[in-house]
Amino acid sequence: MNDSALDPRALAERVGAGMFAEDAASRGLGMRIEAMGPGHARLSMRVRADMLNGFKICHGGFITALADSAFAFACNSSNELTLAAGIAVDFIAPAMEGDLLMAEAREVVLAGRTGLYDVTVTNEKGQIVATLRGRSHRAKNKRVIPT
Amino acid sequence: MNDSALDPRALAERVGAGMFAEDAASRGLGMRIEAMGPGHARLSMRVRADMLNGFKICHGGFITALADSAFAFACNSSNELTLAAGIAVDFIAPAMEGDLLMAEAREVVLAGRTGLYDVTVTNEKGQIVATLRGRSHRAKNKRVIPT
Amino acid sequence: MNDSALDPRALAERVGAGMFAEDAASRGLGMRIEAMGPGHARLSMRVRADMLNGFKICHGGFITALADSAFAFACNSSNELTLAAGIAVDFIAPAMEGDLLMAEAREVVLAGRTGLYDVTVTNEKGQIVATLRGRSHRAKNKRVIPT
Amino acid sequence: MNDSALDPRALAERVGAGMFAEDAASRGLGMRIEAMGPGHARLSMRVRADMLNGFKICHGGFITALADSAFAFACNSSNELTLAAGIAVDFIAPAMEGDLLMAEAREVVLAGRTGLYDVTVTNEKGQIVATLRGRSHRAKNKRVIPT
Repeated sequence: MNDSALDPRALAERVGAGMFAEDAASRGLGMRIEAMGPGHARLSMRVRADMLNGFKICHGGFITALADSAFAFACNSSNELTLAAGIAVDFIAPAMEGDLLMAEAREVVLAGRTGLYDVTVTNEKGQIVATLRGRSHRAKNKRVIPT
Repeated sequence: MNDSALDPRALAERVGAGMFAEDAASRGLGMRIEAMGPGHARLSMRVRADMLNGFKICHGGFITALADSAFAFACNSSNELTLAAGIAVDFIAPAMEGDLLMAEAREVVLAGRTGLYDVTVTNEKGQIVATLRGRSHRAKNKRVIPT
Repeated sequence: MNDSALDPRALAERVGAGMFAEDAASRGLGMRIEAMGPGHARLSMRVRADMLNGFKICHGGFITALADSAFAFACNSSNELTLAAGIAVDFIAPAMEGDLLMAEAREVVLAGRTGLYDVTVTNEKGQIVATLRGRSHRAKNKRVIPT
Repeated sequence: MNDSALDPRALAERVGAGMFAEDAASRGLGMRIEAMGPGHARLSMRVRADMLNGFKICHGGFITALADSAFAFACNSSNELTLAAGIAVDFIAPAMEGDLLMAEAREVVLAGRTGLYDVTVTNEKGQIVATLRGRSHRAKNKRVIPT
C-alpha cells in the first residue's frame, strides 16, 4: 500500500502517529496529538512546574516548543519530509502552572517547496497565549514514514 | 546597599544569579550562565536525548528555549523587570545529541521601554545553529531582585 | 456627534477616508481603499514601472508598503491612534509590472494596547504574493480623526 | 575577465553599480550607494514629502524599501543571484521629512544557499530608526551581472 491509497486525513493521522512515536522531545513535554489533517495539526500540553521561569510563568521556550511541534506535524502531514527554516513568535498572555495549552497549526500557503504555517496557542479559557508563524522547507523526495 | 552602588557588570551578575536560582525551566534543561554583563548574557546547554524530535535532531523548541533564556537574562541585566514581547528565530544548522550549545545575547537598541536583542546560538565547532531576534517590553518601576 | 453614535463599520470607513486624505505616501503609490471594517482593511495597488528592481520584479519595499498600509488602516479602524511596532514579511511569489495587488488585513488579537494583524497580498489570479504579520501599539487616548 | 580576477571588494562595487543602474525602484526613491563590500552594503535615502503617511512621519514601507535594498545589494555582492525570502522589521523611532537615512547591511551567516543579513537604519543623529533581519535564498549558477 502506498500513500495515494489513503485519503489525506487518514494519511495525516498515520504520519502524526509515526512522528510522535519517535519524538522524545514532544512526548517528554507531555504533548498529545488532538487532531491531524492535511496541512493541519492540533496538539495540547499542560504547563508543569518544571516549565516555569524565574517570574513563575511558563518559559517562552516551552510555549514555543508546543507551537513548533504543531507546526512540524502540520507541515509533514502529507508525508513529505519538511523542516522548519524560521519561526516568529508573539507572546500575548502569560501561561501559568497547570494551564492546558492547545496549539492549532494551519497551512497558509505552499509555494514549491516553501510553506508558511500559522499556529495559535490558546488556554482553556480560549484566550490567545501566543501566535507563531513558521516558514518550512521541504526536502526532495523524502518520506516521513515508510509507505 | 542599592543598585547604584554596584558597577553595571556586578549588578548584571547578581541579577543573573538571582533569576537563575528561581528559574526551574532553565535549570531543568541543564543551562548554565557562562557570562553576564550590561545588556549581555551568555548561556550554555548540552543537547540531551530527551530533546530530540522524530528526525533525531534537537527539537527547535529547545534551541529556542536556550536562546530565549539568554535574551531574558540580557534584557533584565540592569535589574529592571522586562518581558519578551516577540521573537523571531532562524534555524541554520541542526544540533545533535551531545552538542554543547552556546547562546550569546546582546542588546541592539533600547528606546524607551522597548528593547531589541540579538542572540546567536553556536555549537562547539563555532558553527551558527540558530539566531534569535527578540523584542522586549520593560515594566514600570519593577525590580528583578531586591536591592 | 461622537464615535459611539456610529456603528463600527461606518466609523471604520470614516477613519479610513480621513487617514487616506492625509496619507501622501499611500496616495502617491496609487493605492486605493477597497473596503474598511472594524479591525479590517482591504487596499489595492497596481505595480508600476518605477516599482521594479534590478531583476525587473516589484521591489519588496513596495509590496511591503501596500501590506503595511493595509495593516495601518486596519489597526486604526476604531479611531484610536495606533502605530506599527514591527512587521514580518514573507515573500512567496514575484509581482510583475501591471499586476493589480490586493492586501487584506485582519486583526488576529488585541490584548491591552498591543495588537496582532495578518495581511495577505494576492494578485489578480488569486495567488499569494506575500504575507505580513504586524504588531501594533496603541497610544493612550488619542484619536485618528476628530469626533 | 571573470569574477575571480577581481578582489571581493572590487567585485562587490561592480555588482552594486550594475544592479543600481537597472533598479528603477531604488533610484526613483532617491537612494544612493554609499559603500559596497563582500556581504556588505550601505545605502542612503532622504525622506521626501511624498513618503509621509497620514501621521506626517515616514511611511514604514519606505523605511523598509531602503533597508530591503541594502539587504539585496549585500546578499548579491558576490555576483551570485540571490532573492529575499523573508524580512522582519522593527520600527524604533520615527523618521521625519528631510531626514537623511542610512541603511547598513551585513551578512550574519551563509549556510548553503540560505543567508541571513542584518540591516540597521539610522538617521543623521546616529539614532536607530529601524532594524531589518532578512533571509535570502540563492539561485543556482546565476549571475547578477555578466562576467
